[in-house]
Amino acid sequence: MSHLGGGSLLLAWQLKGKHVLIVGGGDVASGRIESVLAADARVTLISPSNGLHTLTKSFLDGPYNITYHDRLFGGVEDLADVDLVLTAIDDVAQSRVICCLCRELKIPVNVADIPESCDFYFGSQIRDGPLQIMISTNGNSPKLANIIRKKVEQSLPEHAGDAITRVGELRVKLKERAPGVGGAIGKRRMRWMIDVCTSWEMEELALLDDQMIRRLLDDGWEKNVVPSPGELGARSSRQVYEAKLNLTTAGVLVTTLSFVAGATCAGLLLLVRRR
Amino acid sequence: MSHLGGGSLLLAWQLKGKHVLIVGGGDVASGRIESVLAADARVTLISPSNGLHTLTKSFLDGPYNITYHDRLFGGVEDLADVDLVLTAIDDVAQSRVICCLCRELKIPVNVADIPESCDFYFGSQIRDGPLQIMISTNGNSPKLANIIRKKVEQSLPEHAGDAITRVGELRVKLKERAPGVGGAIGKRRMRWMIDVCTSWEMEELALLDDQMIRRLLDDGWEKNVVPSPGELGARSSRQVYEAKLNLTTAGVLVTTLSFVAGATCAGLLLLVRRR
Repeated sequence: MSHLGGGSLLLAWQLKGKHVLIVGGGDVASGRIESVLAADARVTLISPSNGLHTLTKSFLDGPYNITYHDRLFGGVEDLADVDLVLTAIDDVAQSRVICCLCRELKIPVNVADIPESCDFYFGSQIRDGPLQIMISTNGNSPKLANIIRKKVEQSLPEHAGDAITRVGELRVKLKERAPGVGGAIGKRRMRWMIDVCTSWEMEELALLDDQMIRRLLDDGWEKNVVPSPGELGARSSRQVYEAKLNLTTAGVLVTTLSFVAGATCAGLLLLVRRR
Repeated sequence: MSHLGGGSLLLAWQLKGKHVLIVGGGDVASGRIESVLAADARVTLISPSNGLHTLTKSFLDGPYNITYHDRLFGGVEDLADVDLVLTAIDDVAQSRVICCLCRELKIPVNVADIPESCDFYFGSQIRDGPLQIMISTNGNSPKLANIIRKKVEQSLPEHAGDAITRVGELRVKLKERAPGVGGAIGKRRMRWMIDVCTSWEMEELALLDDQMIRRLLDDGWEKNVVPSPGELGARSSRQVYEAKLNLTTAGVLVTTLSFVAGATCAGLLLLVRRR
């Protein structure tokens, strides 16, 4: 509790079928476009074409849901039917006008570089398929957020994104087989899913295919047990463990070989001197 | 680009001075209360007192900005002057009513356990002072989000939160000394801050105190260089590096000692046999 207060509320905002207005098309705006397209938003971009970043242009040329207007922000009529507004333009006065209009209309808004005109901030992000991670320093140090992002990225289990995708599929299939919201069945489903996730390694979960998912449900769920990946014919966690063990064995081997090499050298030396 | 689409927009929502309504006081609701208090929200809690979780009660008894109503949700008048709504109650029909009212009033809403009634989701979170990290699997596997959270937590540099706090203070003091938004001075400030963050280790940044910050600005910023922590009298990165080096040295030492031990044994054996 000692750290209560002083933070933000970190959220995964849902943009599927939502309409996002982006004002500006430069470097920062191009990153914003990427972020909202990654969340399946319908985008309207307003920016004179002479200020478009290469990445922004590539989005306009790509197969994305973007409506483009080659002009400056035109006023309140540009905010009709808009669910979220992101601005990244150099004109501070214009930015503040857009922010005021959004607040009147209760449209969430982020104005790049003007914290007090932001209902929310962005952070350093990692994406691996369905896995998304955000690192925020609450505005204290974007650079340290970046350094931490790299460390976090290196620490992620290999194939985490694939594992999450497969487990998501397993959950859907399990729910089809044993439907119902809440109650005893909901609890049993949750318990079994947790058992699967904790007894299988991440890289093993990533290998789950349709056939293995079916066998896992037949031989596992139906009998209320969690078979090992090996029992389903996959690379088992034992094999993963043994691979790790080999590294330790290698260390012992190097030490032993050094001992033998030393013994041999000394022996040869003494034998030579004896003659 | 291969993963564009299918995700959420991860955000750090700002709640300072904002009014959050929480409907429900059980287990899930208590977590929600903690999250929004951590972001300095003004909270109104509506829940019959017989359903309050122990943690919820402790928040009501604590020094927090919470207005409590011991009753059920009463209708649209409960949404007056509210900026964000979170519900966590068992009554699905009532939850849907609250969601509809929020959407009419354009108030962002999260209804626990009913994804389609959510404008945003929560994720697995880490907090270390000003550092906040969120892990989302986009609803595919809360358990894997949890497992990944633990791995990420272990990978974080020690004292990351303290380092961020100190660097935030350094930034504020630098801006006082060299004020101005954007332009050449803004770029030089940003460049120098990046140099400090990349040339000092995280644990060194965490040790920055007021005096060191002053010396860093006097001897560093003013001369457009980045002195080492050692030059400012702190534990230097060299010392940290040497500590790491010692581990490698220990490995080499074990191997060498094995060689010498082997040589000695063989030597002694041959000497004994010679007599």
